[in-house]
Amino acid sequence: MYQLFIANKNYSSWSLRPWLLLTELGIAFEEKQVQFLSNDNAAVFKDFAPNAKVPCLHDGGWVVWDSLAIVEYLAERHSGVWPADAKARSWARSASAEMHSGFTGLRSYCPFHAGGRFDKSPLPAAVMQDLKRISELWQQGLDSFGGPYLAGANFSAVDAFYAPVVFRCQTYGLPLSEQAADYARFLLQKPAMQLWYQQALAEPYRETEHEAAALGQGKMLADYRVSG
Amino acid sequence: MYQLFIANKNYSSWSLRPWLLLTELGIAFEEKQVQFLSNDNAAVFKDFAPNAKVPCLHDGGWVVWDSLAIVEYLAERHSGVWPADAKARSWARSASAEMHSGFTGLRSYCPFHAGGRFDKSPLPAAVMQDLKRISELWQQGLDSFGGPYLAGANFSAVDAFYAPVVFRCQTYGLPLSEQAADYARFLLQKPAMQLWYQQALAEPYRETEHEAAALGQGKMLADYRVSG
Repeated sequence: MYQLFIANKNYSSWSLRPWLLLTELGIAFEEKQVQFLSNDNAAVFKDFAPNAKVPCLHDGGWVVWDSLAIVEYLAERHSGVWPADAKARSWARSASAEMHSGFTGLRSYCPFHAGGRFDKSPLPAAVMQDLKRISELWQQGLDSFGGPYLAGANFSAVDAFYAPVVFRCQTYGLPLSEQAADYARFLLQKPAMQLWYQQALAEPYRETEHEAAALGQGKMLADYRVSG
Repeated sequence: MYQLFIANKNYSSWSLRPWLLLTELGIAFEEKQVQFLSNDNAAVFKDFAPNAKVPCLHDGGWVVWDSLAIVEYLAERHSGVWPADAKARSWARSASAEMHSGFTGLRSYCPFHAGGRFDKSPLPAAVMQDLKRISELWQQGLDSFGGPYLAGANFSAVDAFYAPVVFRCQTYGLPLSEQAADYARFLLQKPAMQLWYQQALAEPYRETEHEAAALGQGKMLADYRVSG
């Protein structure tokens, strides 16, 4: 059975992506959770991942690291990872790759934090530009392939790649276009998203750097985590 | 015929990747070069790329953006893009994805600059750590799949993904392990690499931000560009 190494569900956006994909597609896997450390994760993470990062997939003795490479590895072995339609699949890969290397304004100013609610307004121009691009991108997908998912009628890896943005909208009250906000609400209510969310809320672990980065110069409005 | 939109050959590491892949594999394409602007590329680049970035591939009316998505698009249509062996292919994808989203220490301190030679020593710890990881990664590929390319006997997309690092070694005199340095010399002498290099040297265009970023607090030792 696959083993998927992930970090804290409250903090780790990259862990969420393959976890959500495997869960939504009903592909069996064993979850191996490791906690982020306050100083240096490399020494611990290097034991299971050559790049010392999460997520990392083990398949028997074989190691696949990096979220996007994990997706392509799964796509060679299971249907439904990418859309069956060639154009939808190409679009989904472009959109996922754009997320994989981009949106650094949003990602650095609004780090993934499932349980918190923060007011960090006014949002910097770089974040607003990223959100404008995300609205435009989601709308293009929904218009081109008919929805309700980004690349058509079925959940695929591109939805998994943007799932952390959906949580960030909830955490930071981020502005999106009406159609994009509708999609975010739609994805958020999926059982697998809610399962991740509830497990994130139940985590007792706190890590000071992630907490400080989420708060930044803003203020915490609420914290829905149940203990810690 | 494919159209590949790229920017300045002296500066654009992301443009080099699909250009080199197409050229090495002998896949016909029309090169569409646009120049980086000193202020904001988005207004111009948005005309051909939805993310306003290079590289971007046009196939008839269909647009594929982002280097990694372009590679997967080509992999569905041409043999040799990824290794035929499943393990080598999985490794090549992990290694390429690690480059796609990582090595930010090296990328920001030592920006791609084909024609210049700079002394920026001592290199910061983040750059040294990236170089150590790159040496380790290349060595793993060469040892596991027999070389002389990173994932086996044939050039594939993972070589294209690390080709900009090979140029950076020349530009900044970067330290690598002996085996990794051997690979860098091997790749650098490939005709397609030399063609890109000669075309970069011949470009008359200079862009102040890229020049300033390459120089940083270091000193320029040489500039092999022929005019400007």
